[in-house]
Amino acid sequence: MAEFDIEGVVRALHEARADWRATHRRSREPGGRELPSRTALAAILEQLQGALFPMRLGPPELRHDGEDFYVGYTLETALQALLEQARLEVSHALRHDETVTHADVQGRAESAVRAFAAQLPQIRRLLDSDVQAAFQGDPAARSVDEVLLCYPGVLALIHHRLAHALYGLGLPLLARIVAEQSHAATGIDIHPGAQIGAAFFIDHGTGVVIGETAIIGERVRLYQAVTLGAKRFPTDENGALRKGLPRHPVVEDDVVIYAGATILGRVTIGRGAVIGGNVWVIDDVPPGASVTQATLRNGAAA
Amino acid sequence: MAEFDIEGVVRALHEARADWRATHRRSREPGGRELPSRTALAAILEQLQGALFPMRLGPPELRHDGEDFYVGYTLETALQALLEQARLEVSHALRHDETVTHADVQGRAESAVRAFAAQLPQIRRLLDSDVQAAFQGDPAARSVDEVLLCYPGVLALIHHRLAHALYGLGLPLLARIVAEQSHAATGIDIHPGAQIGAAFFIDHGTGVVIGETAIIGERVRLYQAVTLGAKRFPTDENGALRKGLPRHPVVEDDVVIYAGATILGRVTIGRGAVIGGNVWVIDDVPPGASVTQATLRNGAAA
Amino acid sequence: MAEFDIEGVVRALHEARADWRATHRRSREPGGRELPSRTALAAILEQLQGALFPMRLGPPELRHDGEDFYVGYTLETALQALLEQARLEVSHALRHDETVTHADVQGRAESAVRAFAAQLPQIRRLLDSDVQAAFQGDPAARSVDEVLLCYPGVLALIHHRLAHALYGLGLPLLARIVAEQSHAATGIDIHPGAQIGAAFFIDHGTGVVIGETAIIGERVRLYQAVTLGAKRFPTDENGALRKGLPRHPVVEDDVVIYAGATILGRVTIGRGAVIGGNVWVIDDVPPGASVTQATLRNGAAA
Amino acid sequence: MAEFDIEGVVRALHEARADWRATHRRSREPGGRELPSRTALAAILEQLQGALFPMRLGPPELRHDGEDFYVGYTLETALQALLEQARLEVSHALRHDETVTHADVQGRAESAVRAFAAQLPQIRRLLDSDVQAAFQGDPAARSVDEVLLCYPGVLALIHHRLAHALYGLGLPLLARIVAEQSHAATGIDIHPGAQIGAAFFIDHGTGVVIGETAIIGERVRLYQAVTLGAKRFPTDENGALRKGLPRHPVVEDDVVIYAGATILGRVTIGRGAVIGGNVWVIDDVPPGASVTQATLRNGAAA
Amino acid sequence: MAEFDIEGVVRALHEARADWRATHRRSREPGGRELPSRTALAAILEQLQGALFPMRLGPPELRHDGEDFYVGYTLETALQALLEQARLEVSHALRHDETVTHADVQGRAESAVRAFAAQLPQIRRLLDSDVQAAFQGDPAARSVDEVLLCYPGVLALIHHRLAHALYGLGLPLLARIVAEQSHAATGIDIHPGAQIGAAFFIDHGTGVVIGETAIIGERVRLYQAVTLGAKRFPTDENGALRKGLPRHPVVEDDVVIYAGATILGRVTIGRGAVIGGNVWVIDDVPPGASVTQATLRNGAAA
Amino acid sequence: MAEFDIEGVVRALHEARADWRATHRRSREPGGRELPSRTALAAILEQLQGALFPMRLGPPELRHDGEDFYVGYTLETALQALLEQARLEVSHALRHDETVTHADVQGRAESAVRAFAAQLPQIRRLLDSDVQAAFQGDPAARSVDEVLLCYPGVLALIHHRLAHALYGLGLPLLARIVAEQSHAATGIDIHPGAQIGAAFFIDHGTGVVIGETAIIGERVRLYQAVTLGAKRFPTDENGALRKGLPRHPVVEDDVVIYAGATILGRVTIGRGAVIGGNVWVIDDVPPGASVTQATLRNGAAA
Repeated sequence: MAEFDIEGVVRALHEARADWRATHRRSREPGGRELPSRTALAAILEQLQGALFPMRLGPPELRHDGEDFYVGYTLETALQALLEQARLEVSHALRHDETVTHADVQGRAESAVRAFAAQLPQIRRLLDSDVQAAFQGDPAARSVDEVLLCYPGVLALIHHRLAHALYGLGLPLLARIVAEQSHAATGIDIHPGAQIGAAFFIDHGTGVVIGETAIIGERVRLYQAVTLGAKRFPTDENGALRKGLPRHPVVEDDVVIYAGATILGRVTIGRGAVIGGNVWVIDDVPPGASVTQATLRNGAAA
Repeated sequence: MAEFDIEGVVRALHEARADWRATHRRSREPGGRELPSRTALAAILEQLQGALFPMRLGPPELRHDGEDFYVGYTLETALQALLEQARLEVSHALRHDETVTHADVQGRAESAVRAFAAQLPQIRRLLDSDVQAAFQGDPAARSVDEVLLCYPGVLALIHHRLAHALYGLGLPLLARIVAEQSHAATGIDIHPGAQIGAAFFIDHGTGVVIGETAIIGERVRLYQAVTLGAKRFPTDENGALRKGLPRHPVVEDDVVIYAGATILGRVTIGRGAVIGGNVWVIDDVPPGASVTQATLRNGAAA
Repeated sequence: MAEFDIEGVVRALHEARADWRATHRRSREPGGRELPSRTALAAILEQLQGALFPMRLGPPELRHDGEDFYVGYTLETALQALLEQARLEVSHALRHDETVTHADVQGRAESAVRAFAAQLPQIRRLLDSDVQAAFQGDPAARSVDEVLLCYPGVLALIHHRLAHALYGLGLPLLARIVAEQSHAATGIDIHPGAQIGAAFFIDHGTGVVIGETAIIGERVRLYQAVTLGAKRFPTDENGALRKGLPRHPVVEDDVVIYAGATILGRVTIGRGAVIGGNVWVIDDVPPGASVTQATLRNGAAA
Repeated sequence: MAEFDIEGVVRALHEARADWRATHRRSREPGGRELPSRTALAAILEQLQGALFPMRLGPPELRHDGEDFYVGYTLETALQALLEQARLEVSHALRHDETVTHADVQGRAESAVRAFAAQLPQIRRLLDSDVQAAFQGDPAARSVDEVLLCYPGVLALIHHRLAHALYGLGLPLLARIVAEQSHAATGIDIHPGAQIGAAFFIDHGTGVVIGETAIIGERVRLYQAVTLGAKRFPTDENGALRKGLPRHPVVEDDVVIYAGATILGRVTIGRGAVIGGNVWVIDDVPPGASVTQATLRNGAAA
Repeated sequence: MAEFDIEGVVRALHEARADWRATHRRSREPGGRELPSRTALAAILEQLQGALFPMRLGPPELRHDGEDFYVGYTLETALQALLEQARLEVSHALRHDETVTHADVQGRAESAVRAFAAQLPQIRRLLDSDVQAAFQGDPAARSVDEVLLCYPGVLALIHHRLAHALYGLGLPLLARIVAEQSHAATGIDIHPGAQIGAAFFIDHGTGVVIGETAIIGERVRLYQAVTLGAKRFPTDENGALRKGLPRHPVVEDDVVIYAGATILGRVTIGRGAVIGGNVWVIDDVPPGASVTQATLRNGAAA
Repeated sequence: MAEFDIEGVVRALHEARADWRATHRRSREPGGRELPSRTALAAILEQLQGALFPMRLGPPELRHDGEDFYVGYTLETALQALLEQARLEVSHALRHDETVTHADVQGRAESAVRAFAAQLPQIRRLLDSDVQAAFQGDPAARSVDEVLLCYPGVLALIHHRLAHALYGLGLPLLARIVAEQSHAATGIDIHPGAQIGAAFFIDHGTGVVIGETAIIGERVRLYQAVTLGAKRFPTDENGALRKGLPRHPVVEDDVVIYAGATILGRVTIGRGAVIGGNVWVIDDVPPGASVTQATLRNGAAA
């Protein structure tokens, strides 16, 4: 077998890392990993799904009389692992603040994970409403169980509702990793900051994008390739991006948005409005209105 | 390490599950899992791919003189596992019918899986036609082997042709799980009910949606983000959705549909027609016609 | 448990394979697998990512003082495994050339992998520029580390820059397998032949398609569902496809292309131009120009 | 690579199996495995050890507040798996009795496993007495935790006390498999039928053999290579072995038996007796006696 | 976390390896592993056991109608893997012979493995005789299946009969690795060179040692801690050990040897003789004789 | 499937644990595992073996030019994991000392592991001497590589020399766990406190026991079932065991001890002495002496 110049490549990669660290003013200090792990979070998510829906997403051999034991043990394991990841994020976020102690980091991580745990039952109830909405909204659905097992829109919401809780508790990096794992699995890209009401349903879903400051009411229905995006980012007088401003749509209760529609900027889609397929919207739409392309008389759904 | 109020969360999740079961009138009976397992089906699919294409999708160390042994053993294992999943689906589907016996469930599951097994050689031949079509339709393709190994459109068809067989044998939930695993892996969303002729080719594929009652002829070619969808669902006089009606397009032999085109409703795209990129179609298209946007003189393909 | 007619199915599948081999004039010779393995390449890619970014994409327990040892050992392992896959591709590509010896195959595979290894440091530096571009281009990004861990666009570029190196070294099948693994994980479909300059950024990404002969300058930014595709394939006087001709766009430095835009054919998008969302472009765009739909005054970004 | 005559070997092995089945009058009926699985039992044992000693033999990451959840879930899983194995043993044992129904088999297996579960707390208390005895009996032991983690004698007793419970509940095959797994791990060979009192301690242990009808009192101590065996098996007037007769020693409370001693037949070693190293005993030993070799004035212990 | 002086230790270990290689006159040539792998052989053994006894030692889910497929595929896989290990041994054994070509090595390895495959059916029949002997010889045995599943003596013979075949085919290193894996699992140490007739039974087994040139007839029975060893090794006039001479006992048909007996040197134990427990034998024993310790009137067996 | 009274068993096990903790005066405090993990140590040992003998006990695919990288990375990983285990042992050992701080525990663990790392090269050199001794002492050995790969005596020494280093550095619990893993794998039971000189060889090995205060010189050879043990433990005037006193044999250089010999108490076996098989020794043996049973003229070896 061939020999490669491993030592040379190792040295050149070492220099590339050193240059990167120099550029970003990072000293090469002794120590271990400073960042959360995608693999660890994927495992935690798998466990949380099992704890939320034990008989349907938990282990195949689980039986009803072991349900609470399973939920308790799985939660305990998942939350301890999440605590470790939270500690990494908090520590990384505060690494330039010299007044922060190890105990501060630990304390923040613990209270975030404790609050997260307390939200889980409410998240389960929200997800039940989503499952119910998907079942009612899709003529092809045969049972609520099929919906929970199969629908990518439901999978995306399980991830989003957990990610949104992490986001709200000061763990935006963990939230983002969870959101991107959902994006990879479903093609649905929901920023963890987006606020989404109960009984939300996304059908098919591939190509959906929902931005950070979007606000979605209850009983809203979306189809594939819908974008709830921002227009160009506002800049200040110096041309720098202004962050954190509301820049994505507000979608009120009972709205339906068909496939391929693009809605941009901080516009409001009024209660009960219907946005047709492939339509491009950059202004407010009044409640109950129906917006279609000139050539389109009906919305589209597969 | 921190202690969390695991017992409190377990109790609240228990109540949430109880409420859900009450809402759906499910008694909490002793017993095990009632639903098929996604993990189990993923493993079965992996085995079936190996059994269909042993030297290319089977284990790397396989050699020609072990081919039939491998195929036989893998099939045996996969079919027994599929039988177990089929039994779960049949039992779940019939759970409210008190006249159904254990032997009925077993019998239906067995005859479905037996029929499925018998269709495998024909499915392999259809897939060979798809591989051949992809090779001929893509100027970048170097060999039929590359096509089978790499093309997401081919991967989607392997799943679809298996899922469609399950769907036709009264196992729509298993079929749907298979279809969604394909959707997750390829971004191509084909309902297992869709009827697709030989030598079908989807290039790139991300965002393609093909609905439940679509009918596609032979030698059809599709590009990314094409939708063969329904218009708004028909409702009866009471406003309830009317299920099961033909509501997706019929695409005849030798049609080409370029990227981003949307075709909605029970329209017919006539033999040999060409539908240009991003075009929106809600009416029949005659055989041989070429439909384009005003600004588009040529179809688009990457 | 049921018995299935395994022997019958095995026989029928055997015949289907025999027919396929006959059609493609392949004799059933003794011997093992002739094609690279997707599983093997996935493992190699995982290792190369760790070797390129040890503290962020390597194993969680890695520490700074073990970095070079880890990089060296991981590279050694990955390159030996890549050599094996390269040998399979070269051997398969030359299987009809009777003058080729075993040593020829080995030699070509070795020099390709040796050259690939030598390019890794430069690839790392290019990827650093991409990470930096993503951080600067997204107002929601909090740190370069978040970008590397989370952004599907960055993941797609890690795969592409490695795949492009393989492609340039005469290993197009390996390159394609790598590209499709990226496509499956991110929904971003970049042909390994595409030439892409430094500091490239794709936001969201689902549905992006970039064709084989596309050329992209430095500091270019793309959003989801952008297509850089070909028009219909040119044919020669006999109607046969003409392969290898430049047929995809040239995108110059500092161009921004918003979501859903479609650019087809060998057109040039001039330096600094801005292409609005959902726009359809089949002609050259001059430097600095801004192309939008009639109804669109601003580009779109989520 | 070489081709072997796989088909020939498969055929010859098929014939060897057929001959074996013919010799043992077993028809080759359709159906699956009829015997318990060693692998399954090894996994069950691992789980039971964790359930009995959660913080010391359970998963490393377990914490006190998750202890009961872990124990409950692990027990549930282990007992269901054990039920499956018990069903296989009962079914196999009764396979020639045509009056036995499927429900009979199920019922026997269930009541055996239910009784087994009920014995677990008492088994834990016995094992606590063994751990305590080992700690007190070995001058090198530093803590009871070290004893539980390290001592092969303790590991052998965990297995034996579980195996003995299975044996007493009519599952001798499962019991034997458990006993042999202990034998393989420790070199200590205790037949599951042996009756052993509390606070039993085996030091070093390699080569110890304790026979099926042995009876051992409380606070007994044994060293390596001690045999509590049978003399030659009694035969009836026809020369056939007479099974089930008491044929191994009775060892009363507080006896110590040093390394290499051999005690054969249904003899009684009286309360508090001491048997020296390498001594050969085939007669009763009175309470309090000390038996040594001529050349040996002291017992031996390492 | 702490930093250790990894680089210093790596350097010192490098020097220790260099010294070792210098002492043994091995140049540090480029290249890979030169020796067979214990892990690889353990996996091969596991597969061969399954192929020999598919329904009892094969995978739990195996069913009768998949038996031959399983056997064929498993054999194919195991033999190819064995061929690779055989090639390593042959190449290592001949590494100082410069006239040996790559093809020679390959040829020798292939013919050895081919011959090994051809012996498998006969080995299965011999093992059937061993299982039968164990069943008949142990009053506690309930069925031949229990014997095959549980008895360490049977496990040791499965390994030995395979190891002996490898030994006879010029693969003594592979044979030895197999033998030691058996030794580790059972405490029974049989040199792969030992010749053992049909229907051999070892009860309990821990501590049994059988030397390289021992010859054992049919229907022989042994208990734990029996040694069939050599006396001091013969030396030539220069005091060098003389290798390869017959130096272990010959045990004729129908002999029984009880626990702890030691038989040393090239003596013959005549047909049907009985050697009592703990007896020390260094001379021939005539057929039908019964040898016991002065104090022992009966043999011993547990 | 059956329901078991899991809740009842969980409750009763909870009470058994509570009673145990009460007996041992352990409060049930929140917190995690306090004891080292056998599984973790097994993995560390595997890595250390690879780091000590990379080309023979490391991963099969390792090549010479990756050797140092592999050694460095493996050491780094193994030592960090060992540090974690050391911390658990130190913390557990000092748990009743209230003056000990977290930093003290960390400091002691770190200096122990740092010293351990520094000893590794010397340990490798000692093991090389053992391998060489085994090769020279066994007429059946074909190469030093075979000895390292196969001989249980060598495996036991790899474990012992590492365990002895841990023992000397104040980590007796880790040392004991390592020793017992060796005992389980080889049947050779060496207390980690035993002092053993270079070029030590144990042949066959099953049943060997070497006690805590034994001292063994250079070039000593032992066969199976040899005991270097203590006589009865000395007690003080109150009858309590007196710990820590020298109570096992001293074996000087070049001694040979044949199978089954038992040597008890603080006796000295003089330089070059030969102890015959099955001999029982409780007094000093002068240098050069040969001790045999009356009936034995030669030592025994298989």
